[in-house]
Amino acid sequence: EQPLVGDIERGEKISGVCGMCHGDNGISNVPIYPNLAGQKEQYLVLQLKAFRDGERVNMAMTSHAQKLSDQDIADLSAYYAQLDPRP
Amino acid sequence: EQPLVGDIERGEKISGVCGMCHGDNGISNVPIYPNLAGQKEQYLVLQLKAFRDGERVNMAMTSHAQKLSDQDIADLSAYYAQLDPRP
Repeated sequence: EQPLVGDIERGEKISGVCGMCHGDNGISNVPIYPNLAGQKEQYLVLQLKAFRDGERVNMAMTSHAQKLSDQDIADLSAYYAQLDPRP
Repeated sequence: EQPLVGDIERGEKISGVCGMCHGDNGISNVPIYPNLAGQKEQYLVLQLKAFRDGERVNMAMTSHAQKLSDQDIADLSAYYAQLDPRP
C-alpha cells in the first residue's frame, strides 16, 4: 500500500483545531503538549493513526484523531513536518 | 511532589544510546523516529515515564525506558529540550 502524499496547503487549512494546543506555528505554548513543527512526517502519521486506532491513548488526542481520514492525517503531517522548528 | 531538576550535562552523558535512533544532535535520521531536539521538556518527561510504566508501548522504547530512573528521565529531557531543533 503506497503511503498517501500529503497536501501541505490542505493540511494548513484543517490544522486550526490542532493549533489550539500545538500553537499556530506548530510550537506548543503548553509545556506538556509537544511541538510539531519540523517533526518527522512519517512519525506524525504513525502517531495520528495510533491515536485514531487506540494504540496510543490520550484524552484530547483520541477524540480529535478519530475524526481524521487517512488523507487528513497525511496532509496534517506534511504540513507540520515542513514548518520551521525554530521560527 | 516537586518535579526533579534535570542536569543537562549528565543528560548528555547518558544520551549515547538514545542517539542511535534519535541522532547525535537529537535530530533523528530515521523517518519513523521522532526528533527530540528542542522538544518540550515536560512532554519528554511524560513520554519517558509512559514508556517506562507501560502506559505507552513501543518495542524499542519500552526496553530502554525501563532502565531509567526519575533523575535519568529528568536529565535526558532537560538535555534534549535545550538542543537546537534546527542545527
